[in-house]
Parts: sequence; structure tokens; C-alpha cells
Amino acid sequence: MRNILIIGAGRSSASLIKYLLDKSSQENLHIIVGDISKEEANKKLNNHPNATAIQLDVFNQEERAKAIANAAIVISMLPASFHIEVAKDCIKYKKNMVTASYISKEIEALHNDVVANNLVFMNEIGVDPGIDHMSAMQVIDKIRDNGGKMLLFESFTGGLVAPESDTNLWNYKFTWNPRNVVTAGQGGAAMFIQEGTYKYIPYHKLFRRTEFLQINGSGKFEAYANRDSLKFRSIYGLDDIPTMYRGTIRKVGFSRAWNIFIQLGMTDDTYTIENSEHMSYRDFTNLFLAYSPSDSVELKLRSYLKIDQDDIMWDKLIELDIFNPTKKIGLKNATPAQILQKILTDKWTLSEDDKDMIIMHHKFGYEIKGEKKQIESSLVSIGENQTYTAMAKTVGLPVAIATLKILNGEISNPGVQRPITKEVYNPILKELEAYGIVFKEKQVPYLGYNPENVLG
Amino acid sequence: MRNILIIGAGRSSASLIKYLLDKSSQENLHIIVGDISKEEANKKLNNHPNATAIQLDVFNQEERAKAIANAAIVISMLPASFHIEVAKDCIKYKKNMVTASYISKEIEALHNDVVANNLVFMNEIGVDPGIDHMSAMQVIDKIRDNGGKMLLFESFTGGLVAPESDTNLWNYKFTWNPRNVVTAGQGGAAMFIQEGTYKYIPYHKLFRRTEFLQINGSGKFEAYANRDSLKFRSIYGLDDIPTMYRGTIRKVGFSRAWNIFIQLGMTDDTYTIENSEHMSYRDFTNLFLAYSPSDSVELKLRSYLKIDQDDIMWDKLIELDIFNPTKKIGLKNATPAQILQKILTDKWTLSEDDKDMIIMHHKFGYEIKGEKKQIESSLVSIGENQTYTAMAKTVGLPVAIATLKILNGEISNPGVQRPITKEVYNPILKELEAYGIVFKEKQVPYLGYNPENVLG
Repeated sequence: MRNILIIGAGRSSASLIKYLLDKSSQENLHIIVGDISKEEANKKLNNHPNATAIQLDVFNQEERAKAIANAAIVISMLPASFHIEVAKDCIKYKKNMVTASYISKEIEALHNDVVANNLVFMNEIGVDPGIDHMSAMQVIDKIRDNGGKMLLFESFTGGLVAPESDTNLWNYKFTWNPRNVVTAGQGGAAMFIQEGTYKYIPYHKLFRRTEFLQINGSGKFEAYANRDSLKFRSIYGLDDIPTMYRGTIRKVGFSRAWNIFIQLGMTDDTYTIENSEHMSYRDFTNLFLAYSPSDSVELKLRSYLKIDQDDIMWDKLIELDIFNPTKKIGLKNATPAQILQKILTDKWTLSEDDKDMIIMHHKFGYEIKGEKKQIESSLVSIGENQTYTAMAKTVGLPVAIATLKILNGEISNPGVQRPITKEVYNPILKELEAYGIVFKEKQVPYLGYNPENVLG
Repeated sequence: MRNILIIGAGRSSASLIKYLLDKSSQENLHIIVGDISKEEANKKLNNHPNATAIQLDVFNQEERAKAIANAAIVISMLPASFHIEVAKDCIKYKKNMVTASYISKEIEALHNDVVANNLVFMNEIGVDPGIDHMSAMQVIDKIRDNGGKMLLFESFTGGLVAPESDTNLWNYKFTWNPRNVVTAGQGGAAMFIQEGTYKYIPYHKLFRRTEFLQINGSGKFEAYANRDSLKFRSIYGLDDIPTMYRGTIRKVGFSRAWNIFIQLGMTDDTYTIENSEHMSYRDFTNLFLAYSPSDSVELKLRSYLKIDQDDIMWDKLIELDIFNPTKKIGLKNATPAQILQKILTDKWTLSEDDKDMIIMHHKFGYEIKGEKKQIESSLVSIGENQTYTAMAKTVGLPVAIATLKILNGEISNPGVQRPITKEVYNPILKELEAYGIVFKEKQVPYLGYNPENVLG
């Protein structure tokens, strides 16, 4: 039996664990799921004979080392900042490692050590990053192999509710870590390049500078820019490309309303509010508005942000109950972002029957034999239920497939890696198709980047 | 002879050095000015017989230790973050120390050591912080000594051009460190309390949430909130005060136009722009606007920020030449803030004959014998010329006066100190009057904090 250690039994691990358990007898695998809560780990295993749950605190050096030494390969599904301790032990005990997270500077710095030990540390192999890299590189390599020259690459991903579960005015529910949604776009200006011109958007304008997208069969969406699209030029080997843009997809109208929270200052996570526990939702909203001995919180907000009384944004705010004078926040010394998250969680939590949806959309512009062409490629994945969500599938399955291929020696290029080479992405994308994760590709007229030219 | 070591011969040291030189024979002083540029230090000394210039790199441990060991008292006029090394040596060699900077956490942490060595480290004794503390505490203590209870404290300071030198549309020139002006308000939400209600303003709204001020004989001004007014409650012993607000004064209309730069993202100092050296001012402006194959930079900006063609803000932008396609930035890999500073410096540098102006304005609301009352107190100080500016006088004179009083044992309370006790502020404020630094105080009707009630 070959032991696969999975550290972290959170929401994203469901499809990952299922895939490996389904293959366990045939592939001679034993799945060990380690989590700070052994109970949580056990829940995911369903008493499967080829699986064991263990209590594992990743900051307990002894527990961690013992579990890693005992594994044939290690998957870390922990938050990105926790991977480094696992990675160091993987080098020490000479184990391959897989994560779905962006490569941090700390992990990057291990590259030479990883190569020296002939190990594979595969990262960024979830959905975003992950499936985005693989599906993009497959098309880009094809274009280049045919002698084409890349002119434009735009890539958009969103985690949304499925149309059948889309029941609120925001057309949005939390299908993933709510904290990441509340603080999305913070940490620096968004940067990208369009037609050779660098563009920078500060956080407080990010949700007002959206682009529209028309996605085959799913309708019109909007996207706001991700933080740093520029660095993907070198990762994808597109150093001189005139247009490179990566964005996050929302239903149309979300960003315009979300901008209200940013303008007010409600998404700030850098300071705490005294006495927040006993404040009402209305008191919270009033913290960000000018003092007045008489004017209502409602009118102050409308006047400050120039919202008409019949603007749908207003109804969105009312739906969230942010003017309620009796509902208490109930969080001690919380940051504005934490309080906003609480308020949103009241309304944006998935119901038992709700399904989520992952949407991905790429645009590839290129020139071949003097002619400019464009390919668009889209993925829509709907969750099965609250366990096997679209998010869990699209994050977990590529991780699982890559893990097994590394274990079986089919992926063996040593070092700190991303899934951007044919040897890696081709077989993984092929296998994902069997799970309904399929891109629809079509040739469209070349548009370049032109905000007037949204494809109808 | 008693050696006074002044570290840092920048613009703020002129009046400080002059005061001490003028007293040097009578008080038996020898002034040693240490600067990274000995030439700069020499310039300030005018071959005075009681003075020596030395080359002093504050990061050179040996040079620093030697200079401090040789002094009777040390004044650090360096940027605030450089004081700590000087302070540690002052403890080691048992020297008193004076700075005009806010007490940092590192300096604060030395308090017990400073007390144990029976030393005085006097800080925050320039203009803001400095004269603001002293002039405020003098009135607050008087009110409390008479049995009054403080209800409101608002305090405003601004470094501006004198009315006779006010020659541009912004009514502003750089009279101090331009970098601090460009990045003013960054680093976290502004926080204060008004009539018992906490208020928080995010950076991107700071210059839209100004207050108006009417200052006797000088007209109407506006002010934006300083970062943390709340912490001054405990410093001033006003823990339960319902209104506490500190702000920075500008001429009316400045903030509304400055907000354009913030909205665009031009004040960001956290990332650098590739190829900034060869960009034109127009290219720079265009970095923050949507790409268009045809629309002009001017129209894109006007449309994005909704500026009418006849709005005075537009003329202010034109005056700064930010749409000039031929003027080059000439700074390599610069941040937006650095580039904006360059553009502003072209237009906002003081001419040889220009004079600066320091304005300070306090409001004190209080209750005494069941009656609510209010005092307003203002200072207007105009510079003499480009050397003895209002800024140099109001920063340097309190530092100089405090230094001599510490040296003579008139200020002796040991520890890391601010000038907030009667023993310190009374004699210093008294002596400042001889230099024209005089507050005008008047009783006004009690207004409380009410944005509708700006005193006419």
C-alpha cells in the first residue's frame, strides 16, 4: 500500500478525497487525512477501508514530521501561508508534494533543494490557479506550435451560484472563503497591459472599472481586474504580448453595488472598532457617515454616495439589512471587514439545496501568416450538491489527478512546478473531461482589446 | 563651554541654530552641528565663533558615539525613524535628548531606562506636534483648574503659503517635505469621535470629508482629518470627551482637487512603474485611465471623474501640465507618488521671495456651573524669508528653548516626555511670544460639533 497524506480536510478536499478513494484498491493506495479536527477528517472518509483519519496540528513539529515520514506523497490543502513547514519536511524526508496554492517566495526559494533531491513540488494545480493555467497553456502552445504569434490573452474566472440557486438581488452567495470575497482586490493597485499600454487601477476604483463578458449559453457577466496580470507574461512565456489581463467574474451589477462598501470603508481589515460587539448593523453603517444631530443614516448614505431612491443598488443594501437598529453585530473588537462579512453571511450563505457554479473564460488573440485571429474558450461547471460543489471538484480533481501521476512516475520533472508544460496539462485536462470539466472553444473574429467591441 | 550637538542641518534647523548661537556667549554654549554633509552644516553657522560643523553619518556607530559622548545635550532633527540609534547612545553616555518628532514605539520603550538614568528625552516639541500640544494643554488645564468639564476639542494646523505669495490656482506651495504632502492621509483610515459617535474615513474619501474653519482675520479654510485623533484622548487626559478631532488646514478648494489624484491612484507609493523615465506627463496620466484606441486622455479623465469643462478643478489640472505630451518624467522605475511629486514640484516650489505661513486653530468646548461655553484660539505665523520660514521658526524655536531649559535644569522631569505639563509649556509659550508666536483667544457661543454651525 502507498500512503497518500492529505493535510487539511476543509470544503475543498471532498472531491479530492473521493477521487483517490475510488482509485485506492486498483492503485494500491491508502489515504491518510490529517486535520486539526480528527472528526472533520473522519467525516470525509465514510469508513472507507483504504483510509485513515488522524489528528494533525501542522504547527506541531513532531506530529507533522511523523505523518510526512510515513507518506509516499503529501498533499497540503492548508491555507497558502501554512505550506512552508510542510514543504521543508517534505525535502527532509524526500517526499513529493502537491498544493493548489500560488507559489510563495518561500516555496520558490526551495527550488534548488527540491531539484537536488529529485523531488516534484507541484503547485497552482487547483482551479484558479490550476485549470486556468492548463487550459490557457494548451491553447497558447497550440497557437505557437502552428507558427502563430500571441497578441492578446485575457482570462476570467468566477465562483458564483448556479442559475437555479440565484435568488438574491446581488446574484451572489458565498461559495468559498467569505473573507477572501470581502477583502478581494486589497493589497495594491491592479496592474495589466492593453494594446501595449500599462494600466493601473487603485483598489477604490477597481469595482468601477469592470469589463463585460458574453459567455456562450450563460449570458452576460462582468469582471474586475486581478491584482497583478503583468507577472503572468513571463510565466506563460508571453513577455512581449501587448494585451494581458486577468479578472474575476461576477454577475452584472454586483461590482457597482459592492463599490458602496469600499467607498464607505467597510472592507477595511486593518483596524478594529471599539465596542463593536454591542453595536447594531445601523450603528456600524453610521460609523462611515458624517455626524449629524438629525439626519437619518439612510439619507446621509444616499447623499454621500449619490444613490437615487429608485436605484437597484439601494434595494441591494436594504436586502442586507444594514440599516437595522436592533440586530447586533456580536463580534468583539472586530475590523470593519469582519463585521461586513458577518452581515453578508446572514444573507449570502448557501441553502442546503443550493448549487454553486465555476465559470472560466479565456480570450486568445494571435497573428498567423499575416492574419489576425481570435479564439475564445469557456468552462461552466455546476456543483452536484453542497459536498461535491463545483469549487470542490475543480480544485480537488486536478490536485488528485496530479498526485496520482506523480506517484506513478508519469509526472517527474523535478523542482517547484506549475502545470504549464504539455507533459503535465495534456493528460490532466484529458482526464478532467471524464468528470464534466470540459472547455468549449470557438474561433471568433479578431477584436484586439477594445472596450467597444464586446462580442455579442 | 557646554556643547550642544544638533544632528541634521536641514531646512528646519535654521531658527533653532540661530536661537542657540544668539544665546551662546551669554549662556556659555558651543554649538556643534553634525550632518551627512559638512558643507550643509557649515552654511547654517555663518562662521560663528561658538560653533563647529562636523561630518556625521548617524549610521556610523563610531562617529555617532564620539559626537554624542562629547555633548552636554543632543538635539536630533533627523527623520523620525532615525532617532532610535541616537537615543540608545544618549542613554549609554547619559545625555539628555530633544526631538520634534512623534514618540515612536521604539522610543517609548526606552522610558524606564531613561528614568533610571535620570535623563530627560523631550519629544514632540516642534510645531505639530509641539506648539499644538502646548497651546492646547494650556487652555485645557485652565478650564479644568476652574472646575470646567471638557466636552469638545478640535485642533487644526496647516503649513501654507503666505497670502502675499499665494499665486497659483491651488493656493498651495511646498513649504515642507513634498513627499509628506503627496502621501498625506495614507496608512489607514482616519478616526475620530464627534458627539460620542466614532467616525472612520477611508483614505480615498478623506479629501471629500473636509470641515470648514473661519479664522479671525485670515478668512475661511478647510481641513481634512488626521489619521488617529482617538489616541490624543488619553495623552491629553480627555478619555471621556465626546468630540475629539484633529485636522490639517488647506485653502478652500484644495482638497476637492487633490482628491482627483487620489481617485486616479497617482499618490500610490507602493509599486514602481516600468519605463517611467521616458514617459511623458501625459503618458503618466493615461496609466490611470481606461484604454481607448481613439478617445483623448483629457476626455477620458473628465468622463471618469465627472469633471465639468468649466469646473475650477479642471483649470487646476491644466495649470499642473499633466496632459503635456512632451515633458518627460525623467525618473527611473519611480512610484506614482514620486512622479506626482516631480510634477507638482515644477509648479509648487517657493520662489525666492515667497513666504510661508503656519496656521493653527483650536476649539475648546466645555461645561462649567451648568453652562456650556466655547473658546477658540488661533495662531498665524508668517515666515521672514526662505531661511527663517514660519515652519523653521515654529519647529525650531520650541526645540531650542526646551533644549536650553533642560541644559539649565529648568525642565528636569525624567523620562520620555511630551510638552504637556505646565512646568514645560508655560515658560516655553511665554518665551515664544517674544518671537511673534502668539495665540489669539476668544470666547464664542458654545456650538458643540455641528457641521451646520460653522462660526461666521
